[in-house]
Amino acid sequence: MTGAVEIHPSAIVHPGTVLGDGVKVLEHAVVGKQPTLSPRSTARREPLAPTVIGAGSIVSTGAIVFAGTTVGERVILGDQSCVRERVTIADDVVVGRGSLIENDTTIGALTRIQADAYITAYSTLEEQVFIAPCVVTTNDNWMGRTEKRLGNMKGPTIRRGARVGGGAVICPAIEIGEEAFVGAGAVVTKDVPPRKVVVGSPARVLRDVPADELLESA
Amino acid sequence: MTGAVEIHPSAIVHPGTVLGDGVKVLEHAVVGKQPTLSPRSTARREPLAPTVIGAGSIVSTGAIVFAGTTVGERVILGDQSCVRERVTIADDVVVGRGSLIENDTTIGALTRIQADAYITAYSTLEEQVFIAPCVVTTNDNWMGRTEKRLGNMKGPTIRRGARVGGGAVICPAIEIGEEAFVGAGAVVTKDVPPRKVVVGSPARVLRDVPADELLESA
Amino acid sequence: MTGAVEIHPSAIVHPGTVLGDGVKVLEHAVVGKQPTLSPRSTARREPLAPTVIGAGSIVSTGAIVFAGTTVGERVILGDQSCVRERVTIADDVVVGRGSLIENDTTIGALTRIQADAYITAYSTLEEQVFIAPCVVTTNDNWMGRTEKRLGNMKGPTIRRGARVGGGAVICPAIEIGEEAFVGAGAVVTKDVPPRKVVVGSPARVLRDVPADELLESA
Repeated sequence: MTGAVEIHPSAIVHPGTVLGDGVKVLEHAVVGKQPTLSPRSTARREPLAPTVIGAGSIVSTGAIVFAGTTVGERVILGDQSCVRERVTIADDVVVGRGSLIENDTTIGALTRIQADAYITAYSTLEEQVFIAPCVVTTNDNWMGRTEKRLGNMKGPTIRRGARVGGGAVICPAIEIGEEAFVGAGAVVTKDVPPRKVVVGSPARVLRDVPADELLESA
Repeated sequence: MTGAVEIHPSAIVHPGTVLGDGVKVLEHAVVGKQPTLSPRSTARREPLAPTVIGAGSIVSTGAIVFAGTTVGERVILGDQSCVRERVTIADDVVVGRGSLIENDTTIGALTRIQADAYITAYSTLEEQVFIAPCVVTTNDNWMGRTEKRLGNMKGPTIRRGARVGGGAVICPAIEIGEEAFVGAGAVVTKDVPPRKVVVGSPARVLRDVPADELLESA
Repeated sequence: MTGAVEIHPSAIVHPGTVLGDGVKVLEHAVVGKQPTLSPRSTARREPLAPTVIGAGSIVSTGAIVFAGTTVGERVILGDQSCVRERVTIADDVVVGRGSLIENDTTIGALTRIQADAYITAYSTLEEQVFIAPCVVTTNDNWMGRTEKRLGNMKGPTIRRGARVGGGAVICPAIEIGEEAFVGAGAVVTKDVPPRKVVVGSPARVLRDVPADELLESA
């Protein structure tokens, strides 16, 4: 994993970006981008620290990483993915092709986010979480209305080892318990207890997660 | 918002494109693209007028805007988004990262389309609509079969101030009434009355939109 | 369809790629990319054959095609789409804007995959299949846990002429029968019989596909 940084000639790495040993930035990727906010955006406007990408990580083809974000070691940011500002990504994370990690989100070590997932702003994903393709998360029960929402926008908290199935939709501020399992296509409107399987729209508890699928045994 | 147009050296602006004062075209964006239709596509084939982008608008990193489309002032077309041909976008619209606006669609002023939404061809979104991330719209009940579909493909009509939640799926030709609210993950198979909240699969009316979330009070 | 290959100066075609007569590679596209796998990925690691793109096909703006993949004639790979390694795409296929075709997948002639669909690894789509926008497929009932999953990951088998509606979610290893029709937003947890319409979450059989929508009459 050590060795020279490789930046493809078609990639753009903005000044100030810190790239660890052996980082690769592939074709047409853009690293260190400053946000261009709408006049009406509720996102914060402080000056952003440089992007930091840890040793051995790869920013794949066409991916975008914003300023103010820190990426750990041996992370793969997939093709055409996008990681917004003030995100913290721990070591050994995979962000799948096309996925978007919105601002002010934290992602724990060894978590795998598969392709085309949407991780909303102000989310917490702990370690060894599995997010299947096309998962949708949300953070705003008021969808852009009322003043009270401004202090209350909150994404999901997805605890250690939880797994969320393809195309599942998670309502705002939901907690998905440790090692819980959300079935494909579920619409999660209530917190999910640890080590339970939920399915359906709205999602209901179906059974316990089988013992042989828990992290200790897998 | 006035001032010089800024086009990143890696962006491509096709000849004939009209860019207003202060327009920014960011890294790897492509503006003024001519469609390359399939031999079997049912889209129209007239020559397309140049793309027009209004003053103060931003075409973000990796975004694509087709010829024949007009974008208003102070619009943000997000990173990796795509706006097809013959689309009309009014002032102060936001198109989120990764979203696709298909051909022959109209979007009213101050409407916000969040990330990774899919707005099908022949859609109408009025003013101050809110489209949450990963919303899916559709326009073809026949999914590519029968001759009769050709005159009958129709996207949604989403009235002023309506809000559609994350990951919701809207069936073809649906009307979503003024200030209506579609819950996250809903599958909308019937028209939604004005100022009603609908949820579920298939979506059913749950209650009225709270008064403090209506545009007049928000 | 015959004639000179056209490669936009901003596109990147990796050495060894075979492009048929009249192939067009548009702005910022990347063809012949080698995978950069995670140390923990379960994908195979053999050396990959060059990408082959058949006569008259188009690799659109910002699209990515991996090495080890063969694309037929008159195929359109849409803007910002991505086709992974060891995929076989027959003639006259359309892959819509933003869609992802994962590794080791086979797609039959005249199949149309619309925008932003997700076709998982180890999928089979036969001829004249119609995949509506934002369809989600899955291949791993264990979501990254247990050793037994490694030989058992399997995407859908979608038979000739089947149609899958917008935003539908297909569970792992599902077979969708010939000319079947999956409604928009359905969550398909069981095999779908030929020429049946299924809708809902979980999807249930609603009726037969109307005779005038079958391939013989359409």
